[in-house]
Amino acid sequence: MTTPIRKNFSSDNVGPVCPAIMRAMIEANTGDVPSYGSDPWTEKLTAIVRERFEAPEAEVFAVSTGTAANALALSALVPPYGGVYCDGVAHIQTDECGAPEFFTAGAKLLTLPSRDGKLSADALRRKLDASRALGVNHVLPTAVSVTQATEWGTLYAPDELRAITGLARELGLHVHMDGARFANALATLGCAAAELTTRAGIDVLSLGATKNGAMAAEAVIFFKPALAQEFARRRKRAAHTWSKARFLSAQLIAYLTDDLWLENARTANRAAARLAEGLGAIPGVELLFPVQINELFVVMPDALIARLREAGYLFYDWYLPDGVAARDGTSPVRLVTSLDATEADVEGLLSVIPG
Amino acid sequence: MTTPIRKNFSSDNVGPVCPAIMRAMIEANTGDVPSYGSDPWTEKLTAIVRERFEAPEAEVFAVSTGTAANALALSALVPPYGGVYCDGVAHIQTDECGAPEFFTAGAKLLTLPSRDGKLSADALRRKLDASRALGVNHVLPTAVSVTQATEWGTLYAPDELRAITGLARELGLHVHMDGARFANALATLGCAAAELTTRAGIDVLSLGATKNGAMAAEAVIFFKPALAQEFARRRKRAAHTWSKARFLSAQLIAYLTDDLWLENARTANRAAARLAEGLGAIPGVELLFPVQINELFVVMPDALIARLREAGYLFYDWYLPDGVAARDGTSPVRLVTSLDATEADVEGLLSVIPG
Amino acid sequence: MTTPIRKNFSSDNVGPVCPAIMRAMIEANTGDVPSYGSDPWTEKLTAIVRERFEAPEAEVFAVSTGTAANALALSALVPPYGGVYCDGVAHIQTDECGAPEFFTAGAKLLTLPSRDGKLSADALRRKLDASRALGVNHVLPTAVSVTQATEWGTLYAPDELRAITGLARELGLHVHMDGARFANALATLGCAAAELTTRAGIDVLSLGATKNGAMAAEAVIFFKPALAQEFARRRKRAAHTWSKARFLSAQLIAYLTDDLWLENARTANRAAARLAEGLGAIPGVELLFPVQINELFVVMPDALIARLREAGYLFYDWYLPDGVAARDGTSPVRLVTSLDATEADVEGLLSVIPG
Amino acid sequence: MTTPIRKNFSSDNVGPVCPAIMRAMIEANTGDVPSYGSDPWTEKLTAIVRERFEAPEAEVFAVSTGTAANALALSALVPPYGGVYCDGVAHIQTDECGAPEFFTAGAKLLTLPSRDGKLSADALRRKLDASRALGVNHVLPTAVSVTQATEWGTLYAPDELRAITGLARELGLHVHMDGARFANALATLGCAAAELTTRAGIDVLSLGATKNGAMAAEAVIFFKPALAQEFARRRKRAAHTWSKARFLSAQLIAYLTDDLWLENARTANRAAARLAEGLGAIPGVELLFPVQINELFVVMPDALIARLREAGYLFYDWYLPDGVAARDGTSPVRLVTSLDATEADVEGLLSVIPG
Repeated sequence: MTTPIRKNFSSDNVGPVCPAIMRAMIEANTGDVPSYGSDPWTEKLTAIVRERFEAPEAEVFAVSTGTAANALALSALVPPYGGVYCDGVAHIQTDECGAPEFFTAGAKLLTLPSRDGKLSADALRRKLDASRALGVNHVLPTAVSVTQATEWGTLYAPDELRAITGLARELGLHVHMDGARFANALATLGCAAAELTTRAGIDVLSLGATKNGAMAAEAVIFFKPALAQEFARRRKRAAHTWSKARFLSAQLIAYLTDDLWLENARTANRAAARLAEGLGAIPGVELLFPVQINELFVVMPDALIARLREAGYLFYDWYLPDGVAARDGTSPVRLVTSLDATEADVEGLLSVIPG
Repeated sequence: MTTPIRKNFSSDNVGPVCPAIMRAMIEANTGDVPSYGSDPWTEKLTAIVRERFEAPEAEVFAVSTGTAANALALSALVPPYGGVYCDGVAHIQTDECGAPEFFTAGAKLLTLPSRDGKLSADALRRKLDASRALGVNHVLPTAVSVTQATEWGTLYAPDELRAITGLARELGLHVHMDGARFANALATLGCAAAELTTRAGIDVLSLGATKNGAMAAEAVIFFKPALAQEFARRRKRAAHTWSKARFLSAQLIAYLTDDLWLENARTANRAAARLAEGLGAIPGVELLFPVQINELFVVMPDALIARLREAGYLFYDWYLPDGVAARDGTSPVRLVTSLDATEADVEGLLSVIPG
Repeated sequence: MTTPIRKNFSSDNVGPVCPAIMRAMIEANTGDVPSYGSDPWTEKLTAIVRERFEAPEAEVFAVSTGTAANALALSALVPPYGGVYCDGVAHIQTDECGAPEFFTAGAKLLTLPSRDGKLSADALRRKLDASRALGVNHVLPTAVSVTQATEWGTLYAPDELRAITGLARELGLHVHMDGARFANALATLGCAAAELTTRAGIDVLSLGATKNGAMAAEAVIFFKPALAQEFARRRKRAAHTWSKARFLSAQLIAYLTDDLWLENARTANRAAARLAEGLGAIPGVELLFPVQINELFVVMPDALIARLREAGYLFYDWYLPDGVAARDGTSPVRLVTSLDATEADVEGLLSVIPG
Repeated sequence: MTTPIRKNFSSDNVGPVCPAIMRAMIEANTGDVPSYGSDPWTEKLTAIVRERFEAPEAEVFAVSTGTAANALALSALVPPYGGVYCDGVAHIQTDECGAPEFFTAGAKLLTLPSRDGKLSADALRRKLDASRALGVNHVLPTAVSVTQATEWGTLYAPDELRAITGLARELGLHVHMDGARFANALATLGCAAAELTTRAGIDVLSLGATKNGAMAAEAVIFFKPALAQEFARRRKRAAHTWSKARFLSAQLIAYLTDDLWLENARTANRAAARLAEGLGAIPGVELLFPVQINELFVVMPDALIARLREAGYLFYDWYLPDGVAARDGTSPVRLVTSLDATEADVEGLLSVIPG
């Protein structure tokens, strides 16, 4: 007999589409409109993005996956003989099955190790100092990619971003932000979206929506429009141009309307905070990082892990950050909350733990 | 003042999603399910495809665009130093912005000219005879790609397909079918789906649904499962793996259920047939090909073209087949009917034409 | 018993290195010099090229094969989503095993048919007129490639080149010249090298030397230096940067010194002319093109072909130009003369033919 | 006034071609032979390689650069969605400007850090244990690449190689060896070539000759012939197939004849050993690694570095291994000896150092 599932905390993509976005897709399903993005929804999406990010010249391209957003964005920033600085655990490095290398025709990801998934201007400068002078035998670094929030659920403050982008500017590097969980970061930091992007010196943002309530919709947003040249062709040859483009745009319009992105993110973040509070109070349970968004990285006794799973709670075994070791009989796991996590889900999990 | 649009005959992707498919997406939007394709919808899709195509071992991979289906399929059939025989007007050659070359890492499309968009076993054999012995300076042909229905709306009969695939087998070539409008062809030919695929020697089919009622859903169907090896990784690195995969699968399940694909295709085909009948009766209007599916390629007097557009009917200027010339004062155009074309749309257009 | 070979007319790459070039390599073999092109020979090569081509700002990159020169040059002219217009029998299209597609990361060669291997401004313009408006579904043409001399041994006159490059300029296309047999063309046309390149509007030349006396040396010459940006990295990542670069440069210096390139070409061309004269006088033998360089394309009675081979003369079976048919009992062959073809070789072959 | 150069210890590719190899090229320069590798030299090369490596079925492909040998070899071992384990300082990772990514169409190098440039079976196993289960989001590792001698001049003993290849076999990974300085390693280890390759479980070897006396010649040697399938086409489309192939083969034949490769290596290694002995005796000078081949990695007082350069000795500033720090006022440098390093060169350098 299989245990019935009580709640799936494996990822923020196991849940359904949020009602407002589903409704927007249904409403878009009327009449004929020109295909391939020459429709009113796509036009409106650009207007909304420009307004939300205070970027009146931004160029916006919707795609259906986060990997597409990242890999396509990088392909516009680095030549085939180029390189991209990123953290050693960046999604582009570890979880996209080589899509960045594919889309860039073989450019290299130049990884910097970290404890918390964050690049720093200092580490970047040290890396450059440690490099031999970059000659023809070496790829030409032309971009930096930061992840907000990071793969460890940690956040860049605006001034940390500005330090990185300032150095990048000095070095002639473009800056990409992987914002698969951008809304979750924004909800926590409580600042304007522009504070983390345009005013922080970001050139291109992969804005995620799928993990935060959409069906399959992400936006590549070029704050520096010159970088978007022929991007429509790049997207097409990667087979990421929907003929019925309105259905991608409609998702993103709804996402950015009436603060839906922030509402969804706050719901998920709150559930994670409550889980963190409950788990953090248990002796022998260690949170690897302060929980700032909707992800928890936790080292737990193996017995507790087994007990939670037996009770019907799903989550992934994980791994430890570089340089961290776990005590015997304990293991790292990851829990992710979604916008549909209820209080009952959270309290249910916590109630499994022996008092 | 702009003319109000009466009906858009530009393409079969300007229309909405058909109700049954939209309903299926809404119904799939409930509860948590594992992401990336480990969900019940995706499992069911494979079962339905196997049954419809009488191919109990077929492997099925859903993607969101026809270009993705074609380019990914070819990437599994040809090495980077390989070549694919196809018709000179094949979609993969003319309308995918180089996606096949991108996904195959630079393989070559080896085009054969034709009058009607169809490859033939004879032409293929002549091409091979005319080639110098294929040495190391030449790409290695490893696949043939046929389009059913073709870019000119013409159809391959089952025996024509078998002649091609028989020769291909003899030469050690895999056979791919671009079935962007497969259902339209199937509806006209009135045979079993297997008659045009498995029993005709097709190895991989790109089965289209988007042009025939879906939102964004196509399936790559491997009838020879050995060719599907690591295809999941190919799809992922091309960024075409949806995390919420159930919404791709749900579209395709509905499409293949209760003959929806055939019903939709018949509706569109019928509208095209009625248009063809009406237009064909007009002096000075020439149908370039017998209308077998939902596309009409027509040479018309320029004055008539202008008049139709002024009346609010949209359609594209087109080009002529190789070796065909148009009389002065006439031009080629393309009209495409969709599943939402009403009798009023068709009769409306025909009524513009002076009696 | 195998027939002893009397003379190998298969290609101009079956022969040895000419003495002056071998001597230059031996003389370069002394002492330590910086590697990867920071040596005096490489510096001198640039100076000589600039002088010979009257192009004081030209950038020069030596490589070891003609395919490398062509494919690398194109990779600097077209983006991965781009296209290159070329003749249907261009070497880049037919004989480089997909190297252009590989080096450009999947750009498309857009072929124009011809009778004689030559592009024309008119044909190019017609091709463009026949294309539908180039939208996002189509690759972006950014270059034209011409071959001088062509694959059929025919030549572009300077004004023919200027007509093409003028149109290219108008369309925003770069122009590449495949000059694998440039010296043979130059020797026949008797003009200045600049007349066929810089003054004819060519942006990048692949200058061949291997077929005309070198061991393995070709030069990519950018007359528009802006196009050479980061070309050193392109060459390196294609693994075409010799560490002991002096030995590439030394070959090319010798080639361009004391008119060696022209002397070698004249020798080979003369032998071809004498063969053409002799063969052309034989009833039933047809020269497919006037012989302007060191290649003959000949339709001969099969019996004569067999007789020549039995007598120890080697040459390849060939194919016919588009639209040309051969009478029964005859076949097309290709003969190529090299700089080491002696009068005895030529007269020997002609003497086999029954008087 | 520039200091006259006394001796260039920058690299083993700054020197000339050794006399025996130059002589072999001159002797090959006679008569016509079929091009593209159908010549007697190329046939003989295969025979010699098979004999030297005790590998009667080995397939051999000559190319002109080490980067070509490595990148082409890897392209035969890993699919575009694949990965290659290698040391963090491997040449393929740090010095080939992304050629491996280019040739493999975007496969990933999966680096393991080390202190000495050597992979170990243990580190490889730990890396695998630390990885999450490899799913579709991750590239598929299909190869391991080891460097013999390593980038730090250290050596793998045969049993260390066997431990790695044994694990690789267990994991289904092919094993590539970058043998740019294979002869230098072999000369020191004093074993049979097969002991380090065929009998050690190596599948493909990039055998270097250029750094050890050749002009531009390396061999890709497949000990497992099945891996060489269509490798001739891979080489051609990378533009690395010489038409006058005899001149590549002749270099390698001479290299492997009469123990020339070992003689050259011994000469260079001896010079390095003498330098190491002299430098190692100087207070404040630290050899980072025992000197086993022809490379020295040395931390020296900055004043001494300056003094040596003023005296006319050339060598590169270098960097420190991971985790090693240098005292203030000292810096790391690299010195490389070639087969033409004389006793006077070595003693000259050592005599600059204050007694």
